[in-house]
Amino acid sequence: MKVSKFGGTSVATGNQIEKLTKIITDDPARRIVVVSAPGKREDDDVKVTDMLIDLGEKCLRGEATETAIEQSVERYRSIARELGIEGAIAEEIEADLQTRVAYNPADEGIFMDQIKAAGEDNNAKLIAAHFNHQGINARYMNPRDAGLLVEGEAGNAHVMAEAYEELEKIRDYDEILIFPGFFGYKPDGQLVTFPRGGSDITGAIVAAGVNAELYENFTDVDSVCVANPKVIDNPEPIHHMTYREMRELSYAGFTVFHDVALIPAFRHGIPVSVKNTNHPEGEGTLITAERSEKHRKYPITGIAADEGFSIIYVHKYLMNREVGFGRRLLEMVEDEGISYEHLPSGIDDSSVILRTAELSLDSENHLLTRIQTELGVDDAYIEHGFAMIMLVGEWMDETVGIAARATGAIADAGINLEMINQGSSEVSLAFAVKERNCDETVKAIYNEFYAKQLYE
Amino acid sequence: MKVSKFGGTSVATGNQIEKLTKIITDDPARRIVVVSAPGKREDDDVKVTDMLIDLGEKCLRGEATETAIEQSVERYRSIARELGIEGAIAEEIEADLQTRVAYNPADEGIFMDQIKAAGEDNNAKLIAAHFNHQGINARYMNPRDAGLLVEGEAGNAHVMAEAYEELEKIRDYDEILIFPGFFGYKPDGQLVTFPRGGSDITGAIVAAGVNAELYENFTDVDSVCVANPKVIDNPEPIHHMTYREMRELSYAGFTVFHDVALIPAFRHGIPVSVKNTNHPEGEGTLITAERSEKHRKYPITGIAADEGFSIIYVHKYLMNREVGFGRRLLEMVEDEGISYEHLPSGIDDSSVILRTAELSLDSENHLLTRIQTELGVDDAYIEHGFAMIMLVGEWMDETVGIAARATGAIADAGINLEMINQGSSEVSLAFAVKERNCDETVKAIYNEFYAKQLYE
Repeated sequence: MKVSKFGGTSVATGNQIEKLTKIITDDPARRIVVVSAPGKREDDDVKVTDMLIDLGEKCLRGEATETAIEQSVERYRSIARELGIEGAIAEEIEADLQTRVAYNPADEGIFMDQIKAAGEDNNAKLIAAHFNHQGINARYMNPRDAGLLVEGEAGNAHVMAEAYEELEKIRDYDEILIFPGFFGYKPDGQLVTFPRGGSDITGAIVAAGVNAELYENFTDVDSVCVANPKVIDNPEPIHHMTYREMRELSYAGFTVFHDVALIPAFRHGIPVSVKNTNHPEGEGTLITAERSEKHRKYPITGIAADEGFSIIYVHKYLMNREVGFGRRLLEMVEDEGISYEHLPSGIDDSSVILRTAELSLDSENHLLTRIQTELGVDDAYIEHGFAMIMLVGEWMDETVGIAARATGAIADAGINLEMINQGSSEVSLAFAVKERNCDETVKAIYNEFYAKQLYE
Repeated sequence: MKVSKFGGTSVATGNQIEKLTKIITDDPARRIVVVSAPGKREDDDVKVTDMLIDLGEKCLRGEATETAIEQSVERYRSIARELGIEGAIAEEIEADLQTRVAYNPADEGIFMDQIKAAGEDNNAKLIAAHFNHQGINARYMNPRDAGLLVEGEAGNAHVMAEAYEELEKIRDYDEILIFPGFFGYKPDGQLVTFPRGGSDITGAIVAAGVNAELYENFTDVDSVCVANPKVIDNPEPIHHMTYREMRELSYAGFTVFHDVALIPAFRHGIPVSVKNTNHPEGEGTLITAERSEKHRKYPITGIAADEGFSIIYVHKYLMNREVGFGRRLLEMVEDEGISYEHLPSGIDDSSVILRTAELSLDSENHLLTRIQTELGVDDAYIEHGFAMIMLVGEWMDETVGIAARATGAIADAGINLEMINQGSSEVSLAFAVKERNCDETVKAIYNEFYAKQLYE
């Protein structure tokens, strides 16, 4: 059994939904379809979810909602029209939205969650109707009936362990199930949406619950690439990678997935496939727990980069003879509610690398003052504007010379390395450079590990 | 005013003391001479300090001491004989030792400190007698009279801040002062010895106290070298380095000094010169606070290496989302009384690099158990047998490509890097390799930065 999730652009038009339909019917193992709300049809289009947020906010402000409801319904109606099923389904969706806007708005978070969830929910109903119209044995599956139990605040649902047991039962349906992404229900029946990447999370949870042989994530790219296509022209595709590689790459700016969305699949050992709805015959990218030697073409699997890092530098003579210094430094960072990323240390020096977004001007000043006064340091200051570059590869720790080739390429490009961190993770090697050098660093590393081998 | 300290081999024979005498009289600025106890004359010789430890232990066991006293006295007598001053001085030294062995042995540490200190103390008296015999205006200077005030346990004296003010007064003596190293006095008059490197510590304290223009450290090497001569044949000398460079090099296996011994000089901004008693006209090594560009010949100043490191590896999925993880890990390390050296961290991984000597089998097991149970990690284990290699150089952080050249040389030698740590200290770059690769790594780096430039 495969669980196939389709993102917003894959369900944005009747034409796209026909592609989805063909993909599902082409493989009898594809038994569960998880769908997003209709996404953008072209760059300046409005996503249904954004229309719904606008609708919900109008409700909360007590403004008229008719136009906003009609706008959303028209979006579904145009899709239904394309699919030749105009009529009943559009009326059903309009009635659904009218019901939702009439909910009690006392708790704004709960109210908004119910409005937002309409995007996926109605799209699942529309697609189920289309499947049935095509004579396919399919049905809409409500997450409450499926037992997708969650806990947490509005907009920040977390799956409950019990959900997996409940979801296992939906293996038994004869019909293909069309499952809306993005939301689940608390044990008391309250709808709650997932955070960012919500439909991906639903897909991963359902795949884990039914113990799918494969979780397919259909999107609008042929595969995950070894580097950001905005920086590298036509980067090499990654046809196979491991969970660990995916996670390390996601961390530093790979945006195909929100890495945390896949955790339910990873935790349950479900392989994940990334495919293109518009080109489903392509190889795509397969993500599994283990990597086999035969897939190895390059010594590294990918290069990720992310900007927006800051470094706190602390210098104190004889620091390394002071038991507890590092721990006290981290306590101060923690007291400000700041997560740190790396903590390179020397004999008399320690640095804390963190995301600039973790800092406010207040917390930055407060933290520096505490470090200066309470730790009795000789010097402490902070610098902003760093980028982190990560080289990721499952055999990195066994391959002599990766660091040498990467640092050599960076040096040849005339770029100064602010930090090198290797030795903890077996699958990654991290560099910090100034933000202005970020793209050039990625290019230098890409050319070293990919272009050279291809063209020399 | 210069303070000149002479190590054990520089005062081991009459001939060596004659070299010392010439060195001091050649430069009128050399006003204070700090001396060690007589060291080894050849490889299988016994140092006077070791004779005295043996004597003290005999006393504590209630054994006869006549032979041991006579052995020590004979050592001084033979030096005096060489210097043509046999007679009164040997009798004085014998009387001194008889007085010391008669001290109250109730506190064994205090008793042993008094016995051990006799080595330096009597040598200072002997050298003062020789100077006087040569018609040089000189005198023995007792550390108590000079105000070298210390605090701390037996064998572990720490200088008190007041000592520097007291010592300033000895600038005013007309005579050249012969000052015994290795010990000071508590305010209550109790003698306490310094830890390892004791005479170096005395020299640095005295130089700081009198605000010397230079603290000269006379030993038996021409200069500090860029790498260990036991690993590299005829390594390049370092003619000039900074305090920071010295400290980073000392940390990782440079044994010319115990780095902490120089701290009083560093703290007071006193330049330190390392010279060879047997070749005083050589350039030696000058150590100062700042380094000037004109001394720059190589991009790195030195390569140090030390074995005996262990790495604790900790893996936990989603570690980087857990605020406080690193701090809690360090708390556990601290609870075992262990100092750590480096803490490289990844997204889901953290490592603690420490000296193996910090661990006992018990503390190792206890620490691992706590990490496994209290931190809920997926995996935690420890590996031993690592060496740390440090590249040290004052401009390292501004020089593009140092890391690339070093890692390239290491890779070309077929050696796998276990860890790279750059980014905290501005003056060093640290690598970890397996101990069996330590010497080869040093050779590879030396050849890259020194041999290549000289011979290509």
